[in-house]
Amino acid sequence: MELTELGKQAKEAARFLATAGTDQKNLALQTMADALIARTAELLDANRLDLADGEKNGLSRAMLDRLSLTEQRILAMADGMRQVADLPDPVGRVLDETVRPNGLRLTKVAVPIGVIAVIYEARPNVTADSAALCFKSGNAVILRGGSEALRSNTAAVRIMRDGLRDAGFPADCVQLIEDTDRETTKVLMRLNDYVDVLIPRGGAGLIRAVVENATVPVIRTGAGTCHIYVDKDADLTMAVNITVNAKTSRPSVCNAAECLLVHRDILKTALPLLASALREKGVELRADPETLGYTPGAVPADESDWGREYNDYIMAVHAVADVGEAISFISRYGTGHSECIVTENTETAERFLREVDAAAVYHNASTRFTDGGEFGLGAEIGISTQKLHARGPLGLRELTSMKYLVQGNGQVR
Amino acid sequence: MELTELGKQAKEAARFLATAGTDQKNLALQTMADALIARTAELLDANRLDLADGEKNGLSRAMLDRLSLTEQRILAMADGMRQVADLPDPVGRVLDETVRPNGLRLTKVAVPIGVIAVIYEARPNVTADSAALCFKSGNAVILRGGSEALRSNTAAVRIMRDGLRDAGFPADCVQLIEDTDRETTKVLMRLNDYVDVLIPRGGAGLIRAVVENATVPVIRTGAGTCHIYVDKDADLTMAVNITVNAKTSRPSVCNAAECLLVHRDILKTALPLLASALREKGVELRADPETLGYTPGAVPADESDWGREYNDYIMAVHAVADVGEAISFISRYGTGHSECIVTENTETAERFLREVDAAAVYHNASTRFTDGGEFGLGAEIGISTQKLHARGPLGLRELTSMKYLVQGNGQVR
Repeated sequence: MELTELGKQAKEAARFLATAGTDQKNLALQTMADALIARTAELLDANRLDLADGEKNGLSRAMLDRLSLTEQRILAMADGMRQVADLPDPVGRVLDETVRPNGLRLTKVAVPIGVIAVIYEARPNVTADSAALCFKSGNAVILRGGSEALRSNTAAVRIMRDGLRDAGFPADCVQLIEDTDRETTKVLMRLNDYVDVLIPRGGAGLIRAVVENATVPVIRTGAGTCHIYVDKDADLTMAVNITVNAKTSRPSVCNAAECLLVHRDILKTALPLLASALREKGVELRADPETLGYTPGAVPADESDWGREYNDYIMAVHAVADVGEAISFISRYGTGHSECIVTENTETAERFLREVDAAAVYHNASTRFTDGGEFGLGAEIGISTQKLHARGPLGLRELTSMKYLVQGNGQVR
Repeated sequence: MELTELGKQAKEAARFLATAGTDQKNLALQTMADALIARTAELLDANRLDLADGEKNGLSRAMLDRLSLTEQRILAMADGMRQVADLPDPVGRVLDETVRPNGLRLTKVAVPIGVIAVIYEARPNVTADSAALCFKSGNAVILRGGSEALRSNTAAVRIMRDGLRDAGFPADCVQLIEDTDRETTKVLMRLNDYVDVLIPRGGAGLIRAVVENATVPVIRTGAGTCHIYVDKDADLTMAVNITVNAKTSRPSVCNAAECLLVHRDILKTALPLLASALREKGVELRADPETLGYTPGAVPADESDWGREYNDYIMAVHAVADVGEAISFISRYGTGHSECIVTENTETAERFLREVDAAAVYHNASTRFTDGGEFGLGAEIGISTQKLHARGPLGLRELTSMKYLVQGNGQVR
């Protein structure tokens, strides 16, 4: 189908959805969740075809694992939808209310954005997840998943659309682009008449392609090169705990730490402790000339190690003269995701919190907390690293826009 | 100078500005305002050169008027800067605060966006205006004004930069691109490493060029095709007042009305009143076949009249069956700026307010109120018609982003 046709249908569905009641939307989410479970066999069949092709095409084991559906994973998908149903409706919140001197009553209310396009990679659970979050926030969604998961995604969307119809909603609240050709995706990125915002969920390559090609508004997500700065006034036990957790609890995610900055005065005491704890977890350390001698087992870092997102058991190590130099280093090499200082010195911590420009700035806690669930948003569609609209975890509220209602009794200007 | 050089300097200045105190910023705004007045002669000299070239190049009288500076207009520019100094500082506001079950304290605070680029057309007062709003909200600004006003803008920026230096700020908080070549402007639109947001202030052509070419995040402004829907339950005197005000109080601006929708049941009673009041103000009416007979002096409308921004003493007239059809018409032809219903029926009004998707939806008041000053924001840098980040008048708050401060005592995940 032509993308403009999909766009028109989405816009039409969005108009319906914008004024739907909370109970009605929650019921539809439950109906979709029920349908996913009831039709588990259909989903697994489709997934088997994707997996067979994936093996034939030499996908890595990690990729095949992310692609694969099981009964349990389908239960988890359905469960995720039910959790979104339980979250408060972000639409209709009164954000501001004033009466002007001339008697005009202004009410700023949260409204859906309209049509959201989501481009993502191989995991089919993202399909249900994105659909649920966009739907609950009153937005029609156009999904474009990875080609490797096409049959799985097609089945999941078919089932969810049936659920929507059963619940009295237009099926076009959720649509999937079945043509995963790159050119088609570029057309989607320029569908300004129909797409109100595009959210890419994926690696650096996808984000770059979107930033380069999109003319529709984009919320950039992901891409985290996070730093841990261990200050001279740090509690070293805490510094070790936080660094090990931020680096190794899940190295493949965007809130994992990539680079360790250490105050020059404590290289001798802090680095051997940090290095041995990290090496115990299998982390390869890449140290600058100044830290190399204090970092047992480290290899020399080169210029390309600064600002690099390894997504792996690798960490760069760099000495800094003070908190000011740490802030400058982060300003130069960070991606504005999550940055952390470990220190017992309140003044130093306050300066770091104030001056570091990132979605989340931490004092004495692991960067791994930058997450919709951990922040109390309930669920997230990604983590924004841009400055417009929303920054940090994107929950339901971040999927809304606003409008002014202006009520008068004949006022003219 | 190379744009990347300008970008680097802006980013550096923005880092300084981000942590500047309110008093310090207000003092700098006063210093800049003083400097503009003290150096009135220098500004007028520069402006005279622009005006002479403008006349030689055959600019219209209206254009020359917008371009021209006088002592009084310079006073007004300075006054505008002082008014911005008097507004509350939007930076540092606490937007949200929570303590998570694990003891992590999350504080969401407003921070500057960073570097804002503003592209605008011929009026030199926009130079001071944009500089003041961006500066107060803690953002470095890169200005690109129209070539017709280049000498005036260069003088104004030189004077403001001197004022910044005198007040202890980096002059690069405010920079002007002196090369007004189109290709250079395109480079600016793609300066993703340095520009956090681009705000185009100008006509439909500029906005289109920006949407088409920009890879940096954009806040789209302007472009208003506003409708007045006169319902069958309208107070006709009020309907006439509002329509005449919305159309004729300033036809060239984006919150002026362009199209009159009238409920089918009252064509005979309402249209002659509306038409004669509008014609008295010199408005040309373009009516659809159904309304033509009831609209004395109107000419037939054609398809191109729907959704058209005349910015002139012209108004389209169209009959609708009911509020639902009015909403559909607006959904199809509106630009999401300001839309108005005139009715005494609360239920009908509520439906209109709920279902119309626009930055400002009015009940019984003129669309001309969509304005930063009228909405109580103090000043505005434009009116956003997009759904992301900010919608409606863009005041100081809308020129900020946010970040999460996360304070712990060793929490790991």
